[in-house]
Amino acid sequence: YELQVADGYQVGRVNGLAVMGEDSGIMLPVMAEVTPSQGPGQVIATGQLQEMAEEAVQNVSAIIKKFSDEDITEKDIHIQFVQTGQQGVDGDSASITVATAVISALENVGVDQNLAMTGSLSVRGDVLPVGGVTHKIEAAAKSGCDTVIIPKANEQDVMIEDEYKEMVEIIPVEHISEVLDIALEGEPEKDSLVDRLKSITGSALEKTGEGAGTGRGPTSPSPQ
Amino acid sequence: YELQVADGYQVGRVNGLAVMGEDSGIMLPVMAEVTPSQGPGQVIATGQLQEMAEEAVQNVSAIIKKFSDEDITEKDIHIQFVQTGQQGVDGDSASITVATAVISALENVGVDQNLAMTGSLSVRGDVLPVGGVTHKIEAAAKSGCDTVIIPKANEQDVMIEDEYKEMVEIIPVEHISEVLDIALEGEPEKDSLVDRLKSITGSALEKTGEGAGTGRGPTSPSPQ
Amino acid sequence: YELQVADGYQVGRVNGLAVMGEDSGIMLPVMAEVTPSQGPGQVIATGQLQEMAEEAVQNVSAIIKKFSDEDITEKDIHIQFVQTGQQGVDGDSASITVATAVISALENVGVDQNLAMTGSLSVRGDVLPVGGVTHKIEAAAKSGCDTVIIPKANEQDVMIEDEYKEMVEIIPVEHISEVLDIALEGEPEKDSLVDRLKSITGSALEKTGEGAGTGRGPTSPSPQ
Amino acid sequence: YELQVADGYQVGRVNGLAVMGEDSGIMLPVMAEVTPSQGPGQVIATGQLQEMAEEAVQNVSAIIKKFSDEDITEKDIHIQFVQTGQQGVDGDSASITVATAVISALENVGVDQNLAMTGSLSVRGDVLPVGGVTHKIEAAAKSGCDTVIIPKANEQDVMIEDEYKEMVEIIPVEHISEVLDIALEGEPEKDSLVDRLKSITGSALEKTGEGAGTGRGPTSPSPQ
Amino acid sequence: YELQVADGYQVGRVNGLAVMGEDSGIMLPVMAEVTPSQGPGQVIATGQLQEMAEEAVQNVSAIIKKFSDEDITEKDIHIQFVQTGQQGVDGDSASITVATAVISALENVGVDQNLAMTGSLSVRGDVLPVGGVTHKIEAAAKSGCDTVIIPKANEQDVMIEDEYKEMVEIIPVEHISEVLDIALEGEPEKDSLVDRLKSITGSALEKTGEGAGTGRGPTSPSPQ
Amino acid sequence: YELQVADGYQVGRVNGLAVMGEDSGIMLPVMAEVTPSQGPGQVIATGQLQEMAEEAVQNVSAIIKKFSDEDITEKDIHIQFVQTGQQGVDGDSASITVATAVISALENVGVDQNLAMTGSLSVRGDVLPVGGVTHKIEAAAKSGCDTVIIPKANEQDVMIEDEYKEMVEIIPVEHISEVLDIALEGEPEKDSLVDRLKSITGSALEKTGEGAGTGRGPTSPSPQ
Ligand SMILES: [Ca+2]
Ligand SMILES: [Ca+2]
Ligand SMILES: [Ca+2]
Ligand SMILES: [Ca+2]
Ligand SMILES: [Ca+2]
Ligand SMILES: [Ca+2]
Ligand SMILES: [Ca+2]
Ligand SMILES: [Ca+2]
Ligand SMILES: [Ca+2]
Ligand SMILES: [Ca+2]
Ligand SMILES: [Ca+2]
Ligand SMILES: [Ca+2]
Repeated sequence: YELQVADGYQVGRVNGLAVMGEDSGIMLPVMAEVTPSQGPGQVIATGQLQEMAEEAVQNVSAIIKKFSDEDITEKDIHIQFVQTGQQGVDGDSASITVATAVISALENVGVDQNLAMTGSLSVRGDVLPVGGVTHKIEAAAKSGCDTVIIPKANEQDVMIEDEYKEMVEIIPVEHISEVLDIALEGEPEKDSLVDRLKSITGSALEKTGEGAGTGRGPTSPSPQ
Repeated sequence: YELQVADGYQVGRVNGLAVMGEDSGIMLPVMAEVTPSQGPGQVIATGQLQEMAEEAVQNVSAIIKKFSDEDITEKDIHIQFVQTGQQGVDGDSASITVATAVISALENVGVDQNLAMTGSLSVRGDVLPVGGVTHKIEAAAKSGCDTVIIPKANEQDVMIEDEYKEMVEIIPVEHISEVLDIALEGEPEKDSLVDRLKSITGSALEKTGEGAGTGRGPTSPSPQ
Repeated sequence: YELQVADGYQVGRVNGLAVMGEDSGIMLPVMAEVTPSQGPGQVIATGQLQEMAEEAVQNVSAIIKKFSDEDITEKDIHIQFVQTGQQGVDGDSASITVATAVISALENVGVDQNLAMTGSLSVRGDVLPVGGVTHKIEAAAKSGCDTVIIPKANEQDVMIEDEYKEMVEIIPVEHISEVLDIALEGEPEKDSLVDRLKSITGSALEKTGEGAGTGRGPTSPSPQ
Repeated sequence: YELQVADGYQVGRVNGLAVMGEDSGIMLPVMAEVTPSQGPGQVIATGQLQEMAEEAVQNVSAIIKKFSDEDITEKDIHIQFVQTGQQGVDGDSASITVATAVISALENVGVDQNLAMTGSLSVRGDVLPVGGVTHKIEAAAKSGCDTVIIPKANEQDVMIEDEYKEMVEIIPVEHISEVLDIALEGEPEKDSLVDRLKSITGSALEKTGEGAGTGRGPTSPSPQ
Repeated sequence: YELQVADGYQVGRVNGLAVMGEDSGIMLPVMAEVTPSQGPGQVIATGQLQEMAEEAVQNVSAIIKKFSDEDITEKDIHIQFVQTGQQGVDGDSASITVATAVISALENVGVDQNLAMTGSLSVRGDVLPVGGVTHKIEAAAKSGCDTVIIPKANEQDVMIEDEYKEMVEIIPVEHISEVLDIALEGEPEKDSLVDRLKSITGSALEKTGEGAGTGRGPTSPSPQ
Repeated sequence: YELQVADGYQVGRVNGLAVMGEDSGIMLPVMAEVTPSQGPGQVIATGQLQEMAEEAVQNVSAIIKKFSDEDITEKDIHIQFVQTGQQGVDGDSASITVATAVISALENVGVDQNLAMTGSLSVRGDVLPVGGVTHKIEAAAKSGCDTVIIPKANEQDVMIEDEYKEMVEIIPVEHISEVLDIALEGEPEKDSLVDRLKSITGSALEKTGEGAGTGRGPTSPSPQ
C-alpha cells in the first residue's frame, strides 16, 4: 500500500513523516480523538509505540494539558499512528504531528491534508531538530503534499533533489504555535487559538529580562 | 470443531473473521457484555489478545466512549474472543467486529448472525484496510453466512473462487456507521442509533472547508 | 491425597473437574467468599492460575457483576482453587464451577456436594464446550459424585465405560441459569435467583427478531 | 541463630513452622500490625514471599475482611515473616499462623507463645492439609513449645519419635475458629471473638439442608 | 570519598552502618523528608534499594503510620540512602536508621550526628539482630562517632579490637523507643515522643497475661 | 550537533552538564513545565532516564512538593532532558538542574542561560558531590557559559586547564537555595522565593542544639 494525500481539511488527522531503513521516507498519518473518560482522564497512544515515541507523546501531553487547562481531567485523549503494523513507531520526530492532531480534535478544527510535517517538541512548545529531513520531504512530495513543515534547526540539512523543489514548499518553524497557524483551517477562530497557545507557552518565544542582548532568541537548543 | 452460523439476530455476538496460517480463513465470534463496574469503569478483553489486538480494542474504545458519552464511567465493557485457545488473537482486523458487539450490548439491539465482517478502525470511525480478505470471505461462506462486510480499501483485493460468488454478498464500507446500519436489527431504533454515531464521528464522513475539491472523501488513508 | 465428595449442600464450594496429563481426570474443588473490600472492589483468584484461567475468571466476573448489579462495588470476590499446588490451573473449563461458587457465596445458598461440573462460559452466560469430558466424568464417578454437568456442545464427546454409566447421571446444559437450577439448594428462593439470572443474560436464551426460523437457538458457537 | 520460644502471651506474634530441605523443621514466627493507611487500605506482607505464599496471604485476607467487616477500609495490615533472609518463604502452610497473628493485632489480644501451628486455609475458614507435619512438630518441641496445632486432615501423617511424644500436645483442627480458641488469651473476650468468627464463616462448620446424612461434615476437601 | 561525621544535631539525617565485601564496614547516612503528597500519600525510598531493603522500608512504614496515626494520609515520606551509587543497598539492617530519620523529619527534632546505628525492626517495634556488627562498630569509630546502637540480640557478637574500645560506647537495645531516646535532641519534647511510641507498640515491651513467668520479656525472636 | 548557550534568561530551561565516555563533558539542557493534571498530579520525566536518574527526580520532587505545599496536588510536573537520544540519561548529577528548572516553571521566573550547573541533591536540599567536574566545567566554557555551579564538596576536584580559567567563574554551593539565588532572574521576587526555600529545608543550613561546636556545618555528607 502507498498512501495518497486527500485534498481538503479534516479534523483529527495529520500527515506525519518517517524514515524507513537508511534512505527512504514515508508518510505516517496520525489520528486523534478526545472522548469522555471512564476513570481519571488518560492519554492513550496506539501503533506499537516504542520507548522514545511513548515519551514524545508524554512531552506533547504537557502542551495539551496546559492548552486545555482544567477541561481534560475527565477526558481521554486517543492518539493513533495508523497502519504502522508490527514494526511500530520509534523516535520523537512525530511530536508536532501528534500535537496538531490532538488540538484539532479538541477544538474540532480541520487540518490541511495537503500538508505534511516533522519535528520534535519541548514541553514548552519549542520545535526541536530531527533526523532524515531530506528523505521525509521527498516522501511528502511523492505522496502529493504541497507543503512540508520542518524544524528551523534542520533548515541547513535540507538537500532535496531538483525534481521535488517545485513540488513542495518547505516551511521551517521554531514553535508549535507556528505549526498550528499553518496547519489549521478557518480564520478568525484559528488565530485566537494560536494566540492562546502562544500566551501559554510563549515565554519561550521572546527573550526575557536583563541579560538579553543579541538578536537571536534563546528559545531552543540550537544545534550548530 | 467447526463453527456453523446460527440464524436470526442475537445481542452482543458478532461473527468476525481471521486468517489461519498462510491460506485459510476461520470464523471468529466476538461476544460483548456491559456490566456495572467495581472501581472506575474498564474495558476488559479476553481471548489471549496479543499486542496489536489489545491496541485495536483501545482504538475501538475511543468510539464507544464517544458514542455513550458519560454513561460508561461506572460500567465495565467485557469483550470476549470465544474459543480462541492458547494461540490467542493478534492483529487489528476484528476492530469493527468488536465495535459492533459492544454497541449491540450497550444498546441491547440484536446483530444479524448470518453476517460476518472484517475491518480495522480508526479512533474517528474510519474503516481501514486489512489482510487476507479473500480467505476470510470464503470462510464466512463455508460457515453459512450470506453477507460479508469488508473495508472499501480492500475492494480490489477480493479474488474469491466462483463457487462462493453466489453464496455471499460482499459489502465494502468506509465508516463504522455503515457497518451498524447493515448489522443491527430493528428500524427505526437502529437508524437513530446510526445517526447518533454519524454525528459524533461524522467529520470524517464529509470533507470540510475550503480546500475540498474532488469527489473522493479524505476519510481514510487510501492504499493504492 | 484423593478427594472424596462430601454429602449434603455447602455454601461457596463446588466440585470442578480437570484433566491431568493425557488420560486421567481429577476433582478440583473451587471455593468462593464475598467480603467487604479495602479499596474499590476486586475479583481475587488464587491457586496459581495461568493466563487462560485468569481470563476465564474475568469472563465469569462479567456475569457476576451483571447479576449483582450495584451491590459489589465495595465488595471483594475471593475465588480459591484449593490444593492445586505449584502446577496450578490452566484453561477455562472451570468457568461454570467458579460462577456457581461465587453466586452461592453471594446469595448464601448451598451447592450440592454430590454434583461435579465442567464447562466454559461466555460473558453473556452461554455454556461453551471444553476438552476431556469423558475422563472428567469418570473422575467424578470415582470420587462418589452422582451427577455431572457438561456443556451441551460436548454431548457427543461422552464415551464413558459401562461401569460408570450406572453411577452418574450426565446433564448437558446450554446456559449458566440451567447450571444453577441443578446445583443450588432450596426452592423457591433458588427459582427466583435462577429467573433473575435468566432475565439478565437471557437474550442469549431465545432468538430475537425477524431472522429466527429454526428450532435450534443461536446461543453459543456450535461446534460440529 | 536458633529460636527459643518465649513464655507468656504476646499481641501480633505467632510461632509458625516450616520445613527446611528434606527432613528438618524450623520455627518461623509471623508478626502482624494494623495501622492507618495512606491511600486505600492494603495488606502488605514481607519476608521475601514467593508466589504460593503471596496467594496464601490473599486467602487469609478474605477471612480478615469478612471478620472485621467495614472496619479495615482505611487500615493497612502488615504481615512480617521475621528473619527469613534471602531465601524467603514459599507454600501456604503458614496460612493459619498469619490469620492468627492478624486477628491478634486487630483485636489487641495476646497469643500463646508456647504454641506453634501449621495449616493451610480456605477462603471460608476450613483448615486444609499441609506437608511435613512430623518434622514441624519435632522442631516445635525442640524450641520449647508445649502445644502444636495441625490440620485434622494431617492427623494420620504424624509419626514423631518417642522422645517428643511427652514434650508436646498435638491438637488437630478443622476450622480457623478452633485455632483462635486455642491460641488466644483471655476469656470471655476471646469466646465472643471466636463466636463472631464462627458465625461469619460458619456455614462451613455444619452441614446444610436436605442432602446431609452422615456424621462427617462436608467442610474441607478430605484427603484419604 | 570517606565520610566524616559532623558534630551537633540535624533533623532528618541519621548515620547508618553497612558491611562492604567480607570484612569492612562503612558509614551509610540516611536522610528523610516529609512533604505534602500529590495523590494518596506514599513512602518513596531512593538509593537503588534491592528487594530486602524495600521490604525493610515497608516494615518501618508500619511503625511510622501507627505513630503518626491519621496525619500522613496526604503526606509523602521520602527516604534517601545518600551516595550509595550503582551498587545500591540490600538487607534490612538499616531499619532502625530509617525509622529514626523519618520520625525526626516528621516531628522536626534533631538527631545526634555523633551517633551511628544498625538494627533490623519488626512491624511492632522490636529491634531484631543483624550481621557484621563488629565491622560496623569499627567503621563508626573510624568516622569519629562516639556512640553506636546495636540490637541486644547481637551483644555477644561484638569482638572489636582494643584500639576502638575507648573510642566508642556501644549501646544494645531491644525496642525502637530506646533508639529514639538515645538519638533525638531536646527534653522534655523527646520524652513525650518516646512515650507515645512506647504506648503504640508497647505491648511488645512487657509480658501480657497469665502465662508470663520468667524475668526475660518475650519481645523479639531471641537467637541463641 | 553542538549546543551553544543562548544569552538572556528563559523560564523553565536550565543548562545541565554531563560526562560522555571517559574524558569529555557535554551540555545537557533540562526543560520543565507545570500543567493541570488529569488524575492525581504526577511528576513525569522524559529523556530515557535510567534508574539512578529516575531516583534523582524523585529526590528533587521531595523539595518541590515541600516548596509548593498544597499547590501541586492537581498539577503535573513535566521534566524533559532534551535531545538525549536512545542512550538516555543516568546518574543523579543533574538533580540541581532539574530542581532549578521546575521551580522556574512553577514560579514563572527566568533562569540565566549563560549559567551551567552540576550537583546531586538530598531530599532536604543539601548539594551533594558528583563525578567529572573538571570535564563538565570545560564543556560549559566551550559552549559559551560564563558561570558554572558545582557542589562545595567537589571544590578540590577542579583541575581545569589554564585556557578555561579566564572564561568561566566557578561557584561552589552547599544548598539548593544558593543555586536559585545565582540562577534566577529578578530581585526582589527572587529573594523572597529563595528565603521561602531556605525556611522550608533550612534546618540543614545551620547547626542545631547543644552538640554543635565547630565552625563547619553538618549539612551534607562531607567527602574527604
Ligand atoms: Ca495534493
Ligand atoms: Ca494567520
Ligand atoms: Ca445461514
Ligand atoms: Ca437503514
Ligand atoms: Ca456420594
Ligand atoms: Ca427448579
Ligand atoms: Ca516453653
Ligand atoms: Ca473457650
Ligand atoms: Ca565526633
Ligand atoms: Ca530521656
Ligand atoms: Ca555566553
Ligand atoms: Ca540575592
